[in-house]
Amino acid sequence: MVKKGLGDMHGQKVVLAYSGGLDTSVILKWLAEKGFEIICYCANVGQEGEDFEAVRTKAINAGAVKVYIEDLREEFVKEYVFEAVKANAIYESRYMLGTSIARPCIAKRQVEIARMEGAKYVAHGATGKGNDQVRFEMCAQALDATITTIAPWREPEFIERFKGRSDLLAYAAQHNIPVSSTPKANYSIDENLYHTSYESGMLEDPACAYPESMFKMTVSPEAAPDTPEILRIEFDTGIPVKVTNLTDKTEKTGALELFLYLNQVAGRNGVGRIDIVENRFVGIKSRGVYETPGGTLLREAHLDLEGLCLDREVVRVRDTLSLEWARLCYNGFWFAPEMELVKNAMSFASKDVTGSVDVKCYKGNAIVVGRASPKSLYSADLASMEIESGGATIDYDPSDAQGFIRCNSTRLKAYNLLRGCPAALKEA
Amino acid sequence: MVKKGLGDMHGQKVVLAYSGGLDTSVILKWLAEKGFEIICYCANVGQEGEDFEAVRTKAINAGAVKVYIEDLREEFVKEYVFEAVKANAIYESRYMLGTSIARPCIAKRQVEIARMEGAKYVAHGATGKGNDQVRFEMCAQALDATITTIAPWREPEFIERFKGRSDLLAYAAQHNIPVSSTPKANYSIDENLYHTSYESGMLEDPACAYPESMFKMTVSPEAAPDTPEILRIEFDTGIPVKVTNLTDKTEKTGALELFLYLNQVAGRNGVGRIDIVENRFVGIKSRGVYETPGGTLLREAHLDLEGLCLDREVVRVRDTLSLEWARLCYNGFWFAPEMELVKNAMSFASKDVTGSVDVKCYKGNAIVVGRASPKSLYSADLASMEIESGGATIDYDPSDAQGFIRCNSTRLKAYNLLRGCPAALKEA
Amino acid sequence: MVKKGLGDMHGQKVVLAYSGGLDTSVILKWLAEKGFEIICYCANVGQEGEDFEAVRTKAINAGAVKVYIEDLREEFVKEYVFEAVKANAIYESRYMLGTSIARPCIAKRQVEIARMEGAKYVAHGATGKGNDQVRFEMCAQALDATITTIAPWREPEFIERFKGRSDLLAYAAQHNIPVSSTPKANYSIDENLYHTSYESGMLEDPACAYPESMFKMTVSPEAAPDTPEILRIEFDTGIPVKVTNLTDKTEKTGALELFLYLNQVAGRNGVGRIDIVENRFVGIKSRGVYETPGGTLLREAHLDLEGLCLDREVVRVRDTLSLEWARLCYNGFWFAPEMELVKNAMSFASKDVTGSVDVKCYKGNAIVVGRASPKSLYSADLASMEIESGGATIDYDPSDAQGFIRCNSTRLKAYNLLRGCPAALKEA
Amino acid sequence: MVKKGLGDMHGQKVVLAYSGGLDTSVILKWLAEKGFEIICYCANVGQEGEDFEAVRTKAINAGAVKVYIEDLREEFVKEYVFEAVKANAIYESRYMLGTSIARPCIAKRQVEIARMEGAKYVAHGATGKGNDQVRFEMCAQALDATITTIAPWREPEFIERFKGRSDLLAYAAQHNIPVSSTPKANYSIDENLYHTSYESGMLEDPACAYPESMFKMTVSPEAAPDTPEILRIEFDTGIPVKVTNLTDKTEKTGALELFLYLNQVAGRNGVGRIDIVENRFVGIKSRGVYETPGGTLLREAHLDLEGLCLDREVVRVRDTLSLEWARLCYNGFWFAPEMELVKNAMSFASKDVTGSVDVKCYKGNAIVVGRASPKSLYSADLASMEIESGGATIDYDPSDAQGFIRCNSTRLKAYNLLRGCPAALKEA
Repeated sequence: MVKKGLGDMHGQKVVLAYSGGLDTSVILKWLAEKGFEIICYCANVGQEGEDFEAVRTKAINAGAVKVYIEDLREEFVKEYVFEAVKANAIYESRYMLGTSIARPCIAKRQVEIARMEGAKYVAHGATGKGNDQVRFEMCAQALDATITTIAPWREPEFIERFKGRSDLLAYAAQHNIPVSSTPKANYSIDENLYHTSYESGMLEDPACAYPESMFKMTVSPEAAPDTPEILRIEFDTGIPVKVTNLTDKTEKTGALELFLYLNQVAGRNGVGRIDIVENRFVGIKSRGVYETPGGTLLREAHLDLEGLCLDREVVRVRDTLSLEWARLCYNGFWFAPEMELVKNAMSFASKDVTGSVDVKCYKGNAIVVGRASPKSLYSADLASMEIESGGATIDYDPSDAQGFIRCNSTRLKAYNLLRGCPAALKEA
Repeated sequence: MVKKGLGDMHGQKVVLAYSGGLDTSVILKWLAEKGFEIICYCANVGQEGEDFEAVRTKAINAGAVKVYIEDLREEFVKEYVFEAVKANAIYESRYMLGTSIARPCIAKRQVEIARMEGAKYVAHGATGKGNDQVRFEMCAQALDATITTIAPWREPEFIERFKGRSDLLAYAAQHNIPVSSTPKANYSIDENLYHTSYESGMLEDPACAYPESMFKMTVSPEAAPDTPEILRIEFDTGIPVKVTNLTDKTEKTGALELFLYLNQVAGRNGVGRIDIVENRFVGIKSRGVYETPGGTLLREAHLDLEGLCLDREVVRVRDTLSLEWARLCYNGFWFAPEMELVKNAMSFASKDVTGSVDVKCYKGNAIVVGRASPKSLYSADLASMEIESGGATIDYDPSDAQGFIRCNSTRLKAYNLLRGCPAALKEA
Repeated sequence: MVKKGLGDMHGQKVVLAYSGGLDTSVILKWLAEKGFEIICYCANVGQEGEDFEAVRTKAINAGAVKVYIEDLREEFVKEYVFEAVKANAIYESRYMLGTSIARPCIAKRQVEIARMEGAKYVAHGATGKGNDQVRFEMCAQALDATITTIAPWREPEFIERFKGRSDLLAYAAQHNIPVSSTPKANYSIDENLYHTSYESGMLEDPACAYPESMFKMTVSPEAAPDTPEILRIEFDTGIPVKVTNLTDKTEKTGALELFLYLNQVAGRNGVGRIDIVENRFVGIKSRGVYETPGGTLLREAHLDLEGLCLDREVVRVRDTLSLEWARLCYNGFWFAPEMELVKNAMSFASKDVTGSVDVKCYKGNAIVVGRASPKSLYSADLASMEIESGGATIDYDPSDAQGFIRCNSTRLKAYNLLRGCPAALKEA
Repeated sequence: MVKKGLGDMHGQKVVLAYSGGLDTSVILKWLAEKGFEIICYCANVGQEGEDFEAVRTKAINAGAVKVYIEDLREEFVKEYVFEAVKANAIYESRYMLGTSIARPCIAKRQVEIARMEGAKYVAHGATGKGNDQVRFEMCAQALDATITTIAPWREPEFIERFKGRSDLLAYAAQHNIPVSSTPKANYSIDENLYHTSYESGMLEDPACAYPESMFKMTVSPEAAPDTPEILRIEFDTGIPVKVTNLTDKTEKTGALELFLYLNQVAGRNGVGRIDIVENRFVGIKSRGVYETPGGTLLREAHLDLEGLCLDREVVRVRDTLSLEWARLCYNGFWFAPEMELVKNAMSFASKDVTGSVDVKCYKGNAIVVGRASPKSLYSADLASMEIESGGATIDYDPSDAQGFIRCNSTRLKAYNLLRGCPAALKEA
């Protein structure tokens, strides 16, 4: 059992989620010291400006026997980002789950590699206080319970050896691990094509405003152009399939291409930043700043299209499941059976969410300015209650409302007569 | 029974919700023809620019025996608007319920007047296809089941007599009812200090953009100043108690005063417009455009403060009740026993939502830029898990997370071993 | 519009849900007087002792141009009863929805017949105060919005003509409609193969005990045999597929056959009676007595099997949807889009509910005495946490629980330290 | 930190939850070896036949410096059992939470004693695989975060020393700890006045029937008398206040007295056994057999009274919170802030649940045979819709139902016309 400390691991393979940074480089070496044969795995989920070939070289130099650089961007957009859009996923009313949805995508490939390589171990560099360790490991165990996860930042031996950054740097120097000369930011960053997050360090004080300079995907509303751009976003069964910039006529199709384009337009117009205090699954409140430009745009557009295409009561049932979706995703239960149930329901509910929405991007705002759908349950005719279809008429008669109101208030009247006036009125 | 048509109503009193407009003026006269002794009632819930004394005169001239002009603004803010803020109330993820929360406030006073006057009838001018008739009547019946509501727009005799606006105008002319010379807007408006709504007419086409000129409370983001304003909003047990403009040092306390000030600042910065397709209780989809400047600001601030002050699981339970609150309010069940239950729970959950939030208003954005609370469950120390309090330490140990993860994934591992790999992986 | 009264209906076809009883016989004649060409439709959903050929003759004699006697028993069991079992459906914790699930089955065939016959009208004999009118009409309108429902018991002309039973009898005598000589019971009955219900009349007083003589499907617990019978019920994906009487070795397969057998065994052992006050959709409380022998047995067995086969969190999510299922069914929304969503989720959740449960029937009790499943997520080995599967071990370590507890209580500790002792303790 | 093993604890006080059994006696001695000054605490929650003075003597002999024997029965009934009744609490549709509700009651007094004694440690003998360790510790930490819990059955040193029962017996012999000569049952028992539970050992096989001999509170239905007894149970705001045996005229008031009497009557009539597979919070399925005689009776009666006294929609909202109550209680969150919220809502919902219910106990059945309430929202008059109260009449008009149905089906008709027939019909 891992908990008792790692013994001699010679002959064992481990797949290490490797970023090329200081922490995972030290972990690589440390695992090698334990005797592991190390297969490095670096997931490309759209981190901006990452030099993956440099990561590969660094891993090999540090002793990895093999390196997988996996481009998961298309899969990430299709199987994770667009599932979140379909579910209107949002955690605690505000967080768009940008880190949460990337973890299962990364973990799944790590398990697949472990199975291909015959490795019984996977390892990651997540800390012991955060959500990510939970997500990585819950996903791995749901996908293959025979694989054991090693989390050095929870291993007593590792923690005692590396008490601070200086210990890591000393170890790196000793083992010829090259270290970036860029001074470390006073906050930590998680990055993928859906979002960038900033937390800890100076941001731990929730009263402390974030520095404008830290953002990577968005400009501030103040710095955004004075002229809006309008995008037409087309959905098919709840999934974005085409984006047209009505301002400059650019057209994008293909999940990855269109999503990157949404990021670009939303980002340059200052759309999608939030600054919140959220509740981690491990029971700690934490403050995070996030930018999710394209996702924020898609959420507005998708919600709007649902207004047109979804039956009221489907929305009601679905809204409760959306809360569930967000919590399960946040807490790392992506591959759990209850999440399968919820995702299945989301897809069923979305079967008619097809149509297009026009969204104006302007200095931080994503404003819906029009919508249309072949699956609309609304029409001006219907609103005026005189639709005809195949000879039929919905002959909504205002006097129907009288019976509707009277039946709905029967129990209220009985309550009033039998229990007396509500307190509200008694006070009058 | 009203449905069979109104007979001779001589000797009966009716309290008519009277606006001074064409419809309710015609209704006043028509009810008088039926023999009713008419008491007019005009609720001041903050409609901008209303000349209530002119309304009074008009009512008397048209035959009312008595006119009540009731200033409900303070009550409306305290008992309705701030309850909505406390509940984070929002209908179908977007509508802030500006019309919905005004109806019970207006209906309650109408019932109180009826009881004071010994009237067994109340009347309103709401149409037969909308939500408002439902709200007015459900509230009235919950408050006093012995009172009967007359809705002329559902009375066959009335509907047949007044088939269109020209019939109303002719009748007005015939009875010397003065009519505003302003041409009628091509949409209908509902107005109170919390919001203004625009719907029907040209807005019935959901693809039709709204005219910029129609708004009363907000400028467009584009027209807003280039310089932001920052407000500090202080809450006590979920209720706003003080607003300070950190930019110009203005301070406001008192429910009504501070709320009107929030409207002013948010409005001039273009905050709080939405344009949606929503689902009415009577089963019709409808398109509405709304502006809710102060309310939008308060919602952002309140949500943020909750992040600091509320326990995660309290939020989880409460979020489901918030959905309930919004639906009950929207559908007219304000005085129903289930709403009492939900409101009671909201107040209980809010008992520690005390503190202040700084919100920057800028061109349509309401951006939280800081928060603080004496009731915070967060602190930088707590986040780094080394708080001490009365000698105690929450000695969060990273290795605890290992057991947490392992216990949480026990059922997932069993599922995996007994049921095999999830489909997600099989495809790989 | 029907509401204004039925005019001359010559040339129009109507499909009348016809039982052969006094009410629908009078309705048949009355509709004929209006000029309708009448197609009678009598659904066989398992009413005990009904002579359907006599019903056919009676309908023809009374003027029907055509009579459909439809055996819906198999469909009723498969598409309605077993869906209820799969959903653990129960309304207000006690009512097993025996009338509610029959209505959509009957309404669907009625609409199908109307479409085959080119009829634009359907009619039923349900009263104006109950749930059934709602269920029949909601189902019909969801299935074909071009069809209009006629409910004579809500037609002013009909109601005025037939003020009481004596008016009906006089009309029957006048039109040579034969009337049963059995005196009418002092309560009303609804019957199908799933349940029999008794309400109104003497049962309207909720303090009034029901007469033992009224029951049709069950004996009283007191009258049941002193020797128990044990049934083994086998399920496949949540659906019963085989019943074996372990006492006398009887075996039944086939949906209808096995369900009728369950009724027989449960009934003779006094299983499945309830006596409740429930809340109707139209806003009235009503008292009902029900017997649902086979259904009660199946519910116990199915719940038990789920304990073995379903993941804990799937149960949690599903339980909320079960409440929804029951309400939608009770209120007549069987064919509504939100019900499709809920039913889809139920089927998804049930995909592994396969196995067998042994239930002992004894004097009103249905006691589970054993269960087994090839899809079990439980095993004695798993409970002792040492399962092996393909070389893997779920090495549940008691010390894991320590971390689990500590992480789960982190927020509670913080709450305690920051907010002080809970009231519970302060009082001590 | 406890996890690293207990060091020298001289000068430290610990409050040990002590039963007098082998396990806690060994723990007592083992903790003494560590240097602890040991205060024993034995909670009387109604375990049948316990000799508390013998427990006290045994504790002193084994080295305890002080012993608290606390009679918590009255508090347990009032603050825990009756709260469960009020909430209709049931876990996973079947388990009545008999162990779960006792844990917080016991833990609270343990913390209170620790605070009185100035002890910084509490200890218990619960194992590392069950729910009880979680409940004890979560409650303790919520009540006083400065107190540390010691769970020897999770301490590596303890586990290694005591690998099986023979090690415990040897240690007991060595330290002159007297051991009961009764051979250990092949299952484990938890007992309080609300229920007795049986699990593990031979019961781990879910297909294995339980031995009739094991039950302590109930006879089997087969062994119960042939003559029923009828109890009248009176409730005030959801709480039982009086029980009258209508058969022999016995009357009981006082929370504890009446509850013990209910146990007696229900128990001798075979009411309240279940045999289930449930899902533990630690992620393991477990099989348990339970008897909860009085509680089962109360649940039936309370549910029934709610049918009479509660508004339909209050029940709807409350039912979701009941599911929450049961989960929170089962998982050990009794003193968590979200449980306070839920309990508060339960009390609010119960404010009018006042009246009496007659329940017949007969051979395992608890059959409601009558109910009455001064707070009834039902009456025969109301059901026939002609109630008068203060001159008012709820003039429910059948024709109102027409409008009710038509409004409710407006969206269904629109759906049908715009989307086409549902699949259900297409197949026909």
